[in-house]
Amino acid sequence: MKISDFQDLLKELYLQNDLNRGVTSTFIWLVEEIGELATILNSTDVDKQKVSEEIADIIAWTISIANILDVDIEKALSDKYPNECKKCSSSPCICEK
Amino acid sequence: MKISDFQDLLKELYLQNDLNRGVTSTFIWLVEEIGELATILNSTDVDKQKVSEEIADIIAWTISIANILDVDIEKALSDKYPNECKKCSSSPCICEK
Repeated sequence: MKISDFQDLLKELYLQNDLNRGVTSTFIWLVEEIGELATILNSTDVDKQKVSEEIADIIAWTISIANILDVDIEKALSDKYPNECKKCSSSPCICEK
Repeated sequence: MKISDFQDLLKELYLQNDLNRGVTSTFIWLVEEIGELATILNSTDVDKQKVSEEIADIIAWTISIANILDVDIEKALSDKYPNECKKCSSSPCICEK
């Protein structure tokens, strides 16, 4: 699946709700999902299925914010993450020791 | 760009760093990006370029967590977000009033 197709799918499913709710309330939903991921990561036996679901939710709510503000996700990702690290110009990145 | 290709790119660039840092520290990086997006959204004149960059960072750090835990992002997204809302089975979603 293309990133742009997934963004279009979320527009189709949720854009009207996202616009009605607004960016601030949508951001709060995103933070709620971050909290849910934290809870799972803090558990002694991390459930991979639950992690997958929370990760999907975090990405989806982030894209909802992008949709409200008319941000092209595919362009945002390729601009910020080209085929080498933008900081050290290496692949793999050698910024961290 | 396919979602799986972007996940592969981040693995190539950052997986070793992500594994060395570990999931907890990587989660803290994600939360830092959430804070940076909050700062931009709280400003009186929201800068779309900055929003794009923070959104890209949030998605990338979320995928780094997925890479550490061996979660397939494309599968996670299509399982959680099929072509209709999973809660109301409608497209567009009619869950929210």
